[in-house]
Amino acid sequence: MCEDAGADVIFAPDDSVLYPTPQRAWVTVEKLTDNLCGRFRPGHFRGVATVCAKFFNIVGADMAFFGQKDAQQVAVIRRMVTDLNLPLQIVTCPTVREPDGLAMSSRNQYLSAEQRRQAVYLSSALRESKRLFTAGQRDASILIAAMREILSKGALLQPEYVQIVDTDSLEDIEQIDKSALAAMAVRCGQTRLIDNCILDLRNGPDSL
Amino acid sequence: MCEDAGADVIFAPDDSVLYPTPQRAWVTVEKLTDNLCGRFRPGHFRGVATVCAKFFNIVGADMAFFGQKDAQQVAVIRRMVTDLNLPLQIVTCPTVREPDGLAMSSRNQYLSAEQRRQAVYLSSALRESKRLFTAGQRDASILIAAMREILSKGALLQPEYVQIVDTDSLEDIEQIDKSALAAMAVRCGQTRLIDNCILDLRNGPDSL
Repeated sequence: MCEDAGADVIFAPDDSVLYPTPQRAWVTVEKLTDNLCGRFRPGHFRGVATVCAKFFNIVGADMAFFGQKDAQQVAVIRRMVTDLNLPLQIVTCPTVREPDGLAMSSRNQYLSAEQRRQAVYLSSALRESKRLFTAGQRDASILIAAMREILSKGALLQPEYVQIVDTDSLEDIEQIDKSALAAMAVRCGQTRLIDNCILDLRNGPDSL
Repeated sequence: MCEDAGADVIFAPDDSVLYPTPQRAWVTVEKLTDNLCGRFRPGHFRGVATVCAKFFNIVGADMAFFGQKDAQQVAVIRRMVTDLNLPLQIVTCPTVREPDGLAMSSRNQYLSAEQRRQAVYLSSALRESKRLFTAGQRDASILIAAMREILSKGALLQPEYVQIVDTDSLEDIEQIDKSALAAMAVRCGQTRLIDNCILDLRNGPDSL
């Protein structure tokens, strides 16, 4: 797949290369990891930030590309790069979606046919929040309620969180000023799905 | 002083350059910061590791030089470089000493004449531990007692810690196998002095 996409080299080391001795040095990003997925996955972003720092340093990367679907991951990595003065540029790529709107993810393969059918409600909910926002709605609680309403149509969907947060700090906001991030994590059987969109009068990188 | 020593460029930014926004990303080094000075200076090595990572990345350093006097700092920085795969080499420089043995430090200027006179007992104590080790003594508690005995000659000296630790893990050891680090922190009035030496049958970088 990478070759077809034009890649010359793949660097995909296993753990014995990346962690030859017990890892003692860790990169933690405060505040930005407290909310959203961070609430449900303690320690997750410490591992992500640390392994990305290692990759950047080993490869000597000039640019690194991350998908908008993992919005909190992108925010954490961007902040790490800024705060540790890492000499590379982070580029956020639009979320790539299936024809019905479901954000592409390696996890989608674990969904049963019925789960897959209901998974479309995530992007439907986000699209509805975008429609309401564009129509002038700025009250986060109303947007969240509208998203939860749509998710509730999927009997197999168990929302973990549905939130409207500041795009930089990732802290909850009640009234949207200029822009915000609408983000959700939903359990569908054993599979945990996430999706998000930027609420901004300019067009965001969420491809909704 | 730097120019006299042959420096072409000095990079000495102030806080507004290094921390233009609140620092959220931190490098922590586990275990190695639990013992010695880490016990008495919580958070200190997190700041040291983070600012060094920033410096290395901003400057694009190929090599960085640290003094052996700050043995725990060197160990922490070395581990950070290894674990985060930072593309530079850390070089440990021998402790530079005054003629009577006192390790040079910007803090020495704060010592009164009598404090300065007694401060020599730090290096005397380390030299005694080295003498006993070279003569065959491998029991850490005996070496520590000998060092404390010498420090006790200085009425103005208040030892914070006197320890024998593994040179890599910085964990206390009871019996020295091949080598160890003898390290101490001593309060002398308002001034906190540290010093250390490597106990190794090969010659160490402590200039004692």
